[in-house]
Amino acid sequence: MSENQDLQKSFLETVKFDDKGLVPAIVQDFETGKVLMMAWMNRQSLEMTLEKKKACYWSRSRQKLWLKGESSGNMQNVHDILIDCDGDTLLLKVSQTGGACHMGYQSCFYRKTKDDLSMEICDTLMFNPEDVYGKQS
Amino acid sequence: MSENQDLQKSFLETVKFDDKGLVPAIVQDFETGKVLMMAWMNRQSLEMTLEKKKACYWSRSRQKLWLKGESSGNMQNVHDILIDCDGDTLLLKVSQTGGACHMGYQSCFYRKTKDDLSMEICDTLMFNPEDVYGKQS
Repeated sequence: MSENQDLQKSFLETVKFDDKGLVPAIVQDFETGKVLMMAWMNRQSLEMTLEKKKACYWSRSRQKLWLKGESSGNMQNVHDILIDCDGDTLLLKVSQTGGACHMGYQSCFYRKTKDDLSMEICDTLMFNPEDVYGKQS
Repeated sequence: MSENQDLQKSFLETVKFDDKGLVPAIVQDFETGKVLMMAWMNRQSLEMTLEKKKACYWSRSRQKLWLKGESSGNMQNVHDILIDCDGDTLLLKVSQTGGACHMGYQSCFYRKTKDDLSMEICDTLMFNPEDVYGKQS
């Protein structure tokens, strides 16, 4: 048995962070199974998530801890955290307040590829981003 | 509107590969919504996936194209490909033959964190890995 599959190890020992100290976290609605987003965690944001049961990420663009919903109010209550066979990807099952996407959709995956490789909207708008984040100049 | 949200652009123009030329692809069962795995694609594997409608990835460990199921027979027929708001993560909706995980489980996310931060198995074993991949020495 590879060390990554050892059930005797604790969860935190099993997580493999990449060369930037990050691990991707897929976020799925606890009830509907809809995939809402993917974000990145460093060890500190993962520990905060475990402690508070609210999803907390590492913002790669802003280079800071990011408690999901701190600006928008659209928090994610974390029910379960799963880890994959290689230990290098997490799956969070959450209850999402409002929409997950900063574009106002329920899911960040709101565009689907069509046969001609154009895209179409395939999700529901939950809020107007300007109402939540203010007008972008 | 940011260039990443432009619906006039084609899907392939919208995908943002990272500094290694890769984009993460979340894989979800088309019917049940179960998240099966996450893998990485380069442009060539994405184009093969679009062409064949069978999931094809870039194996980071083996540094080669990886048609999912080429060893195990556990192919993934691709129904839909979604892209997130930033254009840097894909979501594949697939019909999975057998199990997705090389450990024999239906999903690579077969372990769940418990309150004491130990882990427990939370998925169904679909096959014996030794029967499919041979005995690992």
